[in-house]
Amino acid sequence: MNNFIPGTGERTLVLASGRAHPELAEAVAKELGIELLPVSAYDFANSETYVRFSESVRGSDIFLLQSHTAPVNQWLMEQLLMVDAAKRGSARSVTAVAPFFAYARQDKKSRGREPISARLVADMLKTAGADRVLSVDLHTPQIQGFFDGPVDHLWAMPVLVDYVRTRVDLSNVAVVSPDAGRIRVAEQWAAKLGGCPLAFVHKTRDVTRPNQAVANRVVGDVEGRDCVLVDDLIDTGGTIAEAVKVIKEAGGRSVVVAATHGVLSDPAPQRLAECGASEVVVTDTLPISSDKRFDSLTVLSIAPLVARAIREVFDDGSVTSLFDGNA
Amino acid sequence: MNNFIPGTGERTLVLASGRAHPELAEAVAKELGIELLPVSAYDFANSETYVRFSESVRGSDIFLLQSHTAPVNQWLMEQLLMVDAAKRGSARSVTAVAPFFAYARQDKKSRGREPISARLVADMLKTAGADRVLSVDLHTPQIQGFFDGPVDHLWAMPVLVDYVRTRVDLSNVAVVSPDAGRIRVAEQWAAKLGGCPLAFVHKTRDVTRPNQAVANRVVGDVEGRDCVLVDDLIDTGGTIAEAVKVIKEAGGRSVVVAATHGVLSDPAPQRLAECGASEVVVTDTLPISSDKRFDSLTVLSIAPLVARAIREVFDDGSVTSLFDGNA
Amino acid sequence: MNNFIPGTGERTLVLASGRAHPELAEAVAKELGIELLPVSAYDFANSETYVRFSESVRGSDIFLLQSHTAPVNQWLMEQLLMVDAAKRGSARSVTAVAPFFAYARQDKKSRGREPISARLVADMLKTAGADRVLSVDLHTPQIQGFFDGPVDHLWAMPVLVDYVRTRVDLSNVAVVSPDAGRIRVAEQWAAKLGGCPLAFVHKTRDVTRPNQAVANRVVGDVEGRDCVLVDDLIDTGGTIAEAVKVIKEAGGRSVVVAATHGVLSDPAPQRLAECGASEVVVTDTLPISSDKRFDSLTVLSIAPLVARAIREVFDDGSVTSLFDGNA
Amino acid sequence: MNNFIPGTGERTLVLASGRAHPELAEAVAKELGIELLPVSAYDFANSETYVRFSESVRGSDIFLLQSHTAPVNQWLMEQLLMVDAAKRGSARSVTAVAPFFAYARQDKKSRGREPISARLVADMLKTAGADRVLSVDLHTPQIQGFFDGPVDHLWAMPVLVDYVRTRVDLSNVAVVSPDAGRIRVAEQWAAKLGGCPLAFVHKTRDVTRPNQAVANRVVGDVEGRDCVLVDDLIDTGGTIAEAVKVIKEAGGRSVVVAATHGVLSDPAPQRLAECGASEVVVTDTLPISSDKRFDSLTVLSIAPLVARAIREVFDDGSVTSLFDGNA
Amino acid sequence: MNNFIPGTGERTLVLASGRAHPELAEAVAKELGIELLPVSAYDFANSETYVRFSESVRGSDIFLLQSHTAPVNQWLMEQLLMVDAAKRGSARSVTAVAPFFAYARQDKKSRGREPISARLVADMLKTAGADRVLSVDLHTPQIQGFFDGPVDHLWAMPVLVDYVRTRVDLSNVAVVSPDAGRIRVAEQWAAKLGGCPLAFVHKTRDVTRPNQAVANRVVGDVEGRDCVLVDDLIDTGGTIAEAVKVIKEAGGRSVVVAATHGVLSDPAPQRLAECGASEVVVTDTLPISSDKRFDSLTVLSIAPLVARAIREVFDDGSVTSLFDGNA
Amino acid sequence: MNNFIPGTGERTLVLASGRAHPELAEAVAKELGIELLPVSAYDFANSETYVRFSESVRGSDIFLLQSHTAPVNQWLMEQLLMVDAAKRGSARSVTAVAPFFAYARQDKKSRGREPISARLVADMLKTAGADRVLSVDLHTPQIQGFFDGPVDHLWAMPVLVDYVRTRVDLSNVAVVSPDAGRIRVAEQWAAKLGGCPLAFVHKTRDVTRPNQAVANRVVGDVEGRDCVLVDDLIDTGGTIAEAVKVIKEAGGRSVVVAATHGVLSDPAPQRLAECGASEVVVTDTLPISSDKRFDSLTVLSIAPLVARAIREVFDDGSVTSLFDGNA
Repeated sequence: MNNFIPGTGERTLVLASGRAHPELAEAVAKELGIELLPVSAYDFANSETYVRFSESVRGSDIFLLQSHTAPVNQWLMEQLLMVDAAKRGSARSVTAVAPFFAYARQDKKSRGREPISARLVADMLKTAGADRVLSVDLHTPQIQGFFDGPVDHLWAMPVLVDYVRTRVDLSNVAVVSPDAGRIRVAEQWAAKLGGCPLAFVHKTRDVTRPNQAVANRVVGDVEGRDCVLVDDLIDTGGTIAEAVKVIKEAGGRSVVVAATHGVLSDPAPQRLAECGASEVVVTDTLPISSDKRFDSLTVLSIAPLVARAIREVFDDGSVTSLFDGNA
Repeated sequence: MNNFIPGTGERTLVLASGRAHPELAEAVAKELGIELLPVSAYDFANSETYVRFSESVRGSDIFLLQSHTAPVNQWLMEQLLMVDAAKRGSARSVTAVAPFFAYARQDKKSRGREPISARLVADMLKTAGADRVLSVDLHTPQIQGFFDGPVDHLWAMPVLVDYVRTRVDLSNVAVVSPDAGRIRVAEQWAAKLGGCPLAFVHKTRDVTRPNQAVANRVVGDVEGRDCVLVDDLIDTGGTIAEAVKVIKEAGGRSVVVAATHGVLSDPAPQRLAECGASEVVVTDTLPISSDKRFDSLTVLSIAPLVARAIREVFDDGSVTSLFDGNA
Repeated sequence: MNNFIPGTGERTLVLASGRAHPELAEAVAKELGIELLPVSAYDFANSETYVRFSESVRGSDIFLLQSHTAPVNQWLMEQLLMVDAAKRGSARSVTAVAPFFAYARQDKKSRGREPISARLVADMLKTAGADRVLSVDLHTPQIQGFFDGPVDHLWAMPVLVDYVRTRVDLSNVAVVSPDAGRIRVAEQWAAKLGGCPLAFVHKTRDVTRPNQAVANRVVGDVEGRDCVLVDDLIDTGGTIAEAVKVIKEAGGRSVVVAATHGVLSDPAPQRLAECGASEVVVTDTLPISSDKRFDSLTVLSIAPLVARAIREVFDDGSVTSLFDGNA
Repeated sequence: MNNFIPGTGERTLVLASGRAHPELAEAVAKELGIELLPVSAYDFANSETYVRFSESVRGSDIFLLQSHTAPVNQWLMEQLLMVDAAKRGSARSVTAVAPFFAYARQDKKSRGREPISARLVADMLKTAGADRVLSVDLHTPQIQGFFDGPVDHLWAMPVLVDYVRTRVDLSNVAVVSPDAGRIRVAEQWAAKLGGCPLAFVHKTRDVTRPNQAVANRVVGDVEGRDCVLVDDLIDTGGTIAEAVKVIKEAGGRSVVVAATHGVLSDPAPQRLAECGASEVVVTDTLPISSDKRFDSLTVLSIAPLVARAIREVFDDGSVTSLFDGNA
Repeated sequence: MNNFIPGTGERTLVLASGRAHPELAEAVAKELGIELLPVSAYDFANSETYVRFSESVRGSDIFLLQSHTAPVNQWLMEQLLMVDAAKRGSARSVTAVAPFFAYARQDKKSRGREPISARLVADMLKTAGADRVLSVDLHTPQIQGFFDGPVDHLWAMPVLVDYVRTRVDLSNVAVVSPDAGRIRVAEQWAAKLGGCPLAFVHKTRDVTRPNQAVANRVVGDVEGRDCVLVDDLIDTGGTIAEAVKVIKEAGGRSVVVAATHGVLSDPAPQRLAECGASEVVVTDTLPISSDKRFDSLTVLSIAPLVARAIREVFDDGSVTSLFDGNA
Repeated sequence: MNNFIPGTGERTLVLASGRAHPELAEAVAKELGIELLPVSAYDFANSETYVRFSESVRGSDIFLLQSHTAPVNQWLMEQLLMVDAAKRGSARSVTAVAPFFAYARQDKKSRGREPISARLVADMLKTAGADRVLSVDLHTPQIQGFFDGPVDHLWAMPVLVDYVRTRVDLSNVAVVSPDAGRIRVAEQWAAKLGGCPLAFVHKTRDVTRPNQAVANRVVGDVEGRDCVLVDDLIDTGGTIAEAVKVIKEAGGRSVVVAATHGVLSDPAPQRLAECGASEVVVTDTLPISSDKRFDSLTVLSIAPLVARAIREVFDDGSVTSLFDGNA
């Protein structure tokens, strides 16, 4: 009987990018040693978006990279259209790569009659046809549970730590959290930096003197130390700038700010440039245009991490140190 | 036994609006004799959208009006967030009212590796929680089949015809389609205008002399007549302006342009103002800002039609003349 | 550690056929160089259908061919049962091959309270377990959007054109569309035939003289020419026969009719045989029984096209010229 | 604030019928004291089915009655199209009424590579938009579990028992099952008839002498008794006719055959007419055309039972004796 | 025409309880002024669970109360079976009332290859047929986003605060959080208690002296104060007992412990009885058997809050103060 | 162009076990020549279950074995959590192996307002992420239709027959069914044992003398024979013990009891030990703890059968004799 024909079973890895952050996609492709799949993407006169892959995606494992920078809704929709096109174009599997995941801070109903926007984004990716999501440092880890399928959650801390380690006197460093909510992350930083002291900033009204005027202060010992102030993202920069100020007032010798996502909405660049930090370190999960840059800003490349993860996913590898909680 | 408590069974009609076209929502609410439900909607610094209903929507039949004008992706996402908030806020039913339905022209794969964007939009509305869609003059009627649920498809022609009837000499009128694809609609116009003559514009290269240069010409008799040039939407205005020109060249005495959706993307206002049409008539399914307006533009209100449809849907009425094909 | 056992990863291509059009399935199998999977299919006394694959389909990429000829509901249900059996029999992927797609003309609500039958057919295929649909010349391309997954939409025109090219004097040919709605297809024919003239038939009442009796006439120059009259399908043949007549009246020297799908419902065979066309050319997407055949009918084989597409799909190839719009 | 408008909350009960068994639908409507909703239903030349409701179904609780008689696939598809039309026409709820449920005997994989057709039918009804199924005496009760929603499963035995009670000498009756698989139902009959004796027919080869030729025999005491032979359906009548014969051979004085569904496929009418039964009693869950009728056939109306059930469902009543197992 | 019959449109509220916490269900029913729907529920010999409603639930809005106490999987499954029975029994809507929501602490992947159990529980409730979930003080608010539908999230703090207010000297009180992660809740307590001082316990190793041995200490001023130690749940009581100890060591005059959920797994009762707290206050969202009780334990009834919420949901009311964040 | 990187396409077979029946999992692994994937599984203090795979499952075809023994709900939930973890951990396919399928006897609504629990279990497995189910001797074959996907249904009879064949005098054997409902299985046994006589036990009240007291009796010839009494499962053992008694009373020389699933709930061990059977033979689809064992109990290993099936599924093999009805 000869009615079976063996297929080759060969799989192909394809990486394509939306228009939000092509530099990152190029860098990831270079790390992978491949070329980006050419995509035709533009807007019609009435602002509707058009996308088309210029080459076949049949049978491929396609990774569609789009970082949800402003205008967020524009780039999210573009990614959804790409996912739909990949599904209808017979890709074998579709992974939505969102180094910064839109609407992650709207992950619950803080008040009645609100949407749960992060769940909606996860559902839309699923509806469009995404089999998997790959993201970096989600604002809350529960968002993994919003997607009905595997989420590969990367952990940027090693990238940041490796750099910061070269910028501070490790014998005299302290890690500082900008508020009580981020202490757990700061603890991990302190451990990575050799068990250094830890501190955090809090609003004293909220903690011990509710009837007085607000006054932020540092809990923990920062006097005379080189401080590393850590957070997951920097949006308008207000909290960070205030934290730098009180660290300085508390006798901190210097402050390096480190965060994964450089959202840097206005007036973040000015605030950060003037806040007194010696250096502000972020990764390029989001594009950082020239008008957002300032002298003390350092942008580390997330591309090697993302590329390694894509390779792992494609190869079904088991090297897990790059995933959160060693997944 | 008294473990049953009769509920009132009373239903409530609620209308709420996104930020895309509040004037239309206000007008619809006025027609219905109700007030719009207050909505808090704004964008965060990084452009993520926030919405919240300011009053309870529990148990209501809520209609969420958003017209998909530019920036389309922004307003579409806002409507999706409102749908999600209504679902999670325990609305009894959620109707997405989209007088102009985004991406309706991307309703098929014209070439391989394209998305079918209109289907994606329909699926996203369903995923967010919409039970029903209400729209006006979809670009192709097949889009009704993209939504898995009832679509109330309104038919704006009567609104336009009633107006145009007062603007032309009915004994000397002709209806003209700007291309072969819209002749069926033009036929319906001609019937409504008392059985007047019909004509259409086509590119002669495409029809009888493919090897020559393109030359649009009018098929049918327009000489000395007051012409009504009809279409479903006017986007950049190129096709319409060209059609007016050739009608004039063919001896048309005057041209009134009539279309349901005034997209009017640049440079439509200038083109239309200068094309020689005596009047351009559209409805306000889309907002028409002052910079899009020009002297010969007339904007008719679609609000009475939409309001009647909402009333019908809410009351489960059977007056069907306002729906396409008398649904 | 030895708890991983490498599988072979070898894939198998399987083709099976329902009872609607076994000749086509045999021809496709022959083109592919494989044998059809044996299927047991019959009806019980009360007309319920029974199907069973006689050999294993585990892990295969199975293509289930059924052309939706009359009785349509019978053959559609048989295909759905085969899809279900393949899913439950652990096929790796299931492709429903429907060279002619049932209910394609019911693709919208023309009037209220109608179903959208083509969407229902697409949904039933999905529900039964089809991962993909493969079809030829869908009546409207929007139907691709009715299926939630990839649709491989084949384009039969090259098959027809290659044949017709040998039957007419290319220096004296004209392409004619039987109504205004099919001009776009006729344009493509004209281009393929070397840029020949183009014409179409329309009902004059509908276009320029609505108050007079109906009178079809040809727009465009056919006098003295060998005409090719093109359409997507021929059902009862009324429109086509009428078109041939008016072409002849307009001075056409001869008429060859070409269409993809030969539905040929009564009284099409008689009408076509007697209408004055020198030849009627269709493909065998549908079975054409002997009682439907007449002297001037030519049936071209669609099998090579379908076989190539199946091969492409199975091999994840990128040869795209056989798909509509080069997918 | 006046943005709430109270609706009436009034619900409407609508009953519509396909073409399979309009007599039953008429009878049910009459029992309910309503008129059938007019439906336009016919087949196109190529056998595709068309349906449309002639009046509005908005907001109604609609019951769509179709009995799955031959040609089963035709009537099943027609019912699915009606369900789709009701859903898209904004019915509040849709109940598929299938007095005889198609493919109920294909409720498992008896062998590998078979479909589970009854599950497929249930899924198709769900996909088309049915919220609920109402059926009579399903072949196996597990089929209730195939539908993802409420199934109202009616129990026809009381209708049959009440009639048979008047036809036999209750002091001398015996209930007989045609095979071992139906004894449970026969037990219920015996109890309803006052605790009469019970017997059943079995093939002796299968039970005690596998190596001998087949020989059906009666287990239990039927000698001199008026026997009631009971089953859920009669298809080709072979099993029943054989059972009557052996009952007679075993000394049974007379035999009345009683079954819910009179499928009566050829050659059932002849077999039953000649088998020696004094009377064959079925209900009209399926249409019984004049060519299927014979002198000793009695057809009882199922309409009162179906009508009562529809009324219960619509009124959310709790009279449960008419449902199987008093649901 | 009389084919419409108006239904009454009357709705019924039904409350039924599983076996996990019948006392709470009784109390809620009493608050609502109704009787519990009788339910038959027991386990078969092999531990499979059986449930059946003893009266009709057709057309009702049914609330199925089960608190997920130990054995959690047993009671969760019982609730799922009740939901399924209600769906199949034609309830109009089904609300799963889970005062304590199982697996809420497994709401993310802390490490790779873990499940996200809280999402699974939410999905299972949906799959079984629950339209809505009603719960009290979810461990993290993101869990609302795990359910695809409305979640009514009640807020027990007012119940606890009103009681505690009567037990402490408001002029000399301090609110203490047992760890940094709960400071936000403690802030809300402090505000409700009139703006009293706030403190929290943390492990000093984690904060300022990582190389030394662990030593919990109080941050904030508790010396001489009556302290209220607050948390969302008390499981084994270890963290709470340790916090009481260090508050006492820091000079706290007395400690009242307040938490919503009294899980009280072994050895919590002993630990809490002996830890030095003057009183431990919880609600009865979970059953607290006599062997879990100790002298200083006070159990407040959550029934009035749950009953009010059910009433609001059933009446589509807009009183929102009882919901978290005034939903 | 080098943007395609060929993957290896290599697949891996992984087997992991819950805590219900690790001995069986170990035996299956040994048969397969692999090691079990290490799993961390335990219960928290409040009885919530925790599971985690200790090694990567990315890209694997994972088989998760859990037999649904008491406490059923506990082990079912553990298996669901494992399925969820495998799905989120990027397994390529997930097969739930349930040698004994929970709630299989609750496969229909016997009375109104009951759940259909077996369908719920099937749906929960699907919701959690199972692509396929593998089970042995389902109580009714319709349960295959409850799962929306492939069910590999193994048939333990050959295992039992091969053993029993060595324990009885084949020239003097009879097969007996404990009630009428299992005769079909007994027929298959008789055929496998060389066409031996067949008998069954029934309650005479139910069959021929309803008014008398119950009296079970044997139908068929067992006198002087070695009898094999067969069933699918033995739960509390009541029916089986009674059947042995009446076989003995009817002159049976000896009785061997054979069943696939040894549920053996109390007081089955005592009843069976004392009922007079010479031997009770079951397989180890369920764990049989030492307190359930008795002298005459023989437990056959099902592991070779399950292992062969897993191998077939993984290799997409077509050896089908081990599946029910040769699938």
